[in-house]
Amino acid sequence: MNIAVLGAGSVGGTLGRLWAAKGHSVTFGVPDPSGDKVKKVLKDLNGARATNNREAAASADVIALCTPWPVAQDAVQSAGDLTGKILIDATNPLANDLSGLVVGLTTSAAEQVQGWAPRAKVVKAFNTIGAIDYGNAHFGSLRADGFYCGDDAAAKAAVKQLIGDTDLEPVDVGPLRNARLLEPLAMLWIDLAVNQRLGTNHGFKLLRR
Amino acid sequence: MNIAVLGAGSVGGTLGRLWAAKGHSVTFGVPDPSGDKVKKVLKDLNGARATNNREAAASADVIALCTPWPVAQDAVQSAGDLTGKILIDATNPLANDLSGLVVGLTTSAAEQVQGWAPRAKVVKAFNTIGAIDYGNAHFGSLRADGFYCGDDAAAKAAVKQLIGDTDLEPVDVGPLRNARLLEPLAMLWIDLAVNQRLGTNHGFKLLRR
Repeated sequence: MNIAVLGAGSVGGTLGRLWAAKGHSVTFGVPDPSGDKVKKVLKDLNGARATNNREAAASADVIALCTPWPVAQDAVQSAGDLTGKILIDATNPLANDLSGLVVGLTTSAAEQVQGWAPRAKVVKAFNTIGAIDYGNAHFGSLRADGFYCGDDAAAKAAVKQLIGDTDLEPVDVGPLRNARLLEPLAMLWIDLAVNQRLGTNHGFKLLRR
Repeated sequence: MNIAVLGAGSVGGTLGRLWAAKGHSVTFGVPDPSGDKVKKVLKDLNGARATNNREAAASADVIALCTPWPVAQDAVQSAGDLTGKILIDATNPLANDLSGLVVGLTTSAAEQVQGWAPRAKVVKAFNTIGAIDYGNAHFGSLRADGFYCGDDAAAKAAVKQLIGDTDLEPVDVGPLRNARLLEPLAMLWIDLAVNQRLGTNHGFKLLRR
């Protein structure tokens, strides 16, 4: 797939690296395409390049929104016309002090993203486990889950594959509004990591029988 | 332990049965102690009895709040003085149509319960998996987790044991305010069960390595 990754931090950088390794064409959209930060990320990536958000998104079928929440709206709106494109929302609307979420209950970051890009097919994914565990999601013989939700079946099928490409076990949890439930789950992962001092070696799994 | 279970529906009835089987002394607090519903529950329970909330709570060290959310405040306030007692909040503040939660983001059901019983030691537990899976929490060789949170270490230690008594794997997720994250997780369990038609044979697990 042709993928634009908006943001080259731990989430975007890791997803870009893993997807490029699986043969996807990856272009980063960043505020400073010739800056040191993105250059460092590109060094490990076969054939990936960096440009501005609009150019990155223009040639992509899939756009992965991997910015911090405070700049997510700018990133989406600077990406231009996203009609028909798949927009993966990997953000979490975290309070600056990690004390909780700033969006929730009656809406979600994902639904806000959908509002900013009404013609895109938004899928929430990659938010419920740390980027450090992408590509390394095995816990013994089990794989941590990569929960995702969205309203477009074809978009979800594509994202399911992109989740599997990062070693996470894709688990469909329904419509986009269920991001209201995945974002608090992400906050729980983060709280356990930071405030309860569990580190980053944990992940959630939905057991079934 | 001497346990008062407020509510004798699927959650309270099941917890009471499992705890009685482990040798705990169980008293149900219900609006109609001689009604058919609670009589049915008591039939399977060795030595358990039913009375009103105040009498049930008076002789108990542990009170388990297992009512539907709309009557939870009445149940707590009718239970009398809960100073120093352990109050397990097993509720979820569900919208009537199961479309979401009616409390969250900046507070939680558990924190509201603490407000109604300021001198009780509130621990959130038993809300993130269906009552049908209590006592039957094995998924192959794995056990689904019984997440709990609270602010009193001794109360949490007691609740940890009561969670283990129902076959769930006790997992401490920090202070009571993290009920803001467990209640959406419960909503996710319920949404998967009801709206995504997964049934009730699922449960969450925190993988670690």
